[in-house]
Amino acid sequence: QTSSDSRSSKVQEMYVYEINERDRGSPVYLRLSQKEVNSLGDLVPLTNKVYHGNLEKRLGITAGICVLVQHVPERGGDRYEAIYSFYFGDYGHISVQGPYLTYEDTYLAVTGGSGVFAGVYGTVKLQQIVYPFKIFYTFYLQGIPDLPRELLGKPVPPSPTVEPTPAAKAAEPHAAVKNFTN
Amino acid sequence: QTSSDSRSSKVQEMYVYEINERDRGSPVYLRLSQKEVNSLGDLVPLTNKVYHGNLEKRLGITAGICVLVQHVPERGGDRYEAIYSFYFGDYGHISVQGPYLTYEDTYLAVTGGSGVFAGVYGTVKLQQIVYPFKIFYTFYLQGIPDLPRELLGKPVPPSPTVEPTPAAKAAEPHAAVKNFTN
Amino acid sequence: QTSSDSRSSKVQEMYVYEINERDRGSPVYLRLSQKEVNSLGDLVPLTNKVYHGNLEKRLGITAGICVLVQHVPERGGDRYEAIYSFYFGDYGHISVQGPYLTYEDTYLAVTGGSGVFAGVYGTVKLQQIVYPFKIFYTFYLQGIPDLPRELLGKPVPPSPTVEPTPAAKAAEPHAAVKNFTN
Repeated sequence: QTSSDSRSSKVQEMYVYEINERDRGSPVYLRLSQKEVNSLGDLVPLTNKVYHGNLEKRLGITAGICVLVQHVPERGGDRYEAIYSFYFGDYGHISVQGPYLTYEDTYLAVTGGSGVFAGVYGTVKLQQIVYPFKIFYTFYLQGIPDLPRELLGKPVPPSPTVEPTPAAKAAEPHAAVKNFTN
Repeated sequence: QTSSDSRSSKVQEMYVYEINERDRGSPVYLRLSQKEVNSLGDLVPLTNKVYHGNLEKRLGITAGICVLVQHVPERGGDRYEAIYSFYFGDYGHISVQGPYLTYEDTYLAVTGGSGVFAGVYGTVKLQQIVYPFKIFYTFYLQGIPDLPRELLGKPVPPSPTVEPTPAAKAAEPHAAVKNFTN
Repeated sequence: QTSSDSRSSKVQEMYVYEINERDRGSPVYLRLSQKEVNSLGDLVPLTNKVYHGNLEKRLGITAGICVLVQHVPERGGDRYEAIYSFYFGDYGHISVQGPYLTYEDTYLAVTGGSGVFAGVYGTVKLQQIVYPFKIFYTFYLQGIPDLPRELLGKPVPPSPTVEPTPAAKAAEPHAAVKNFTN
């Protein structure tokens, strides 16, 4: 009855930008610690826009929460525990959890997904480009069939000046995935 | 040394109802955004009762938190990022994460589990029946041995009038799994 | 194109202690329910120190959040939904989710990881030793290559008097993993 796991362990790389265009009221810094310096007890719900790494297509949004773990004065930043998902319209979503450091690149765990990402596992590299407005991600995805071509392809190399194309920002039909999450 | 993954990729469907009987003080809407309309910043801890899809057995509870992502006035509802678990008494638990829309069915990721669900992966379909009191779930579970018969079987088709049997509501021994979570 | 999953399903046990040395401002009990008794609505961000089960090496920290699910007066304790990660310096991290009961051992789901834990799945047993200061964990890890020897090995059996060695507490170079998380 039990057949061996038929999931592929091939690693598929997928590149996306998360961009805060300041139009979603995100992030919300909940200073529940009631301390002046960022401290354990503070929570940060967030939702930003997600674009293909080539910046030519709007894919969807991020959604979730960061738990402030500690202020790190010697690095001029903060450590968060990040628990959130990436939404890709009709293609489904990917959930992730792990470290978000405002001063350093990190790797998070891919904990699951839906749609074309059903059964996914792996990791994602988070690269801060312009804090807290532009983040570049490289997903290393396993356990799923070959991704749709629309989600693959080379990224624009991360730099502070990257911007989505005007068509992608406007989410014009040719510059957005089907039923892109918004 | 490394042997191939012996987990089964067979998909097992499991049906459950989540029912809010208003006796657990759930959900708690924490209006931390301090806005009049539901907004990013609001958090919603929750715990409801879980019954077998056939409504003849009490299984346990749900427990976790929803992060309000956005109010969607054109759909008359809200988008949440949901992070919670389903508890099944001695059988263990399943953790899930993904979208909860008050106006539309969604698929969440199964991120892990314990007990008979140890090593599980897959997805779960969430169908709103009576907001926010009755939700029907179809789990698509992979990576685990054959589920106990007590957890399998056909569901009562979802409709607004469904109710657990009186014996299941009372969690009588023949109408509850062993050490059902409460 | 699709090759069978090459992940190992071998179970590797790993033992760690989580110790609250009262120097990280953790936990923070956010009484958002505004009730006198611990109640749904309360949230508990946390970050404690993590040591090897042999108590001879500092590994890193825990970081995350517990959602108070219910006060259980007949057991003199509380049920939480726990969502957090274990950090192991350069070795990476493990994310977990599941039940934390202040009065009973539990099993949580391992939902993912990074570094040497990339692609991990399995469970972890949580044993309360001295509430809320000392917890002993047994990880049952699958899906990953053989763990580094530094993370393996027998634990000191859990008891209320266990303490990390002075060198481990001081995180001296020979008594800490490389770039231990702090």
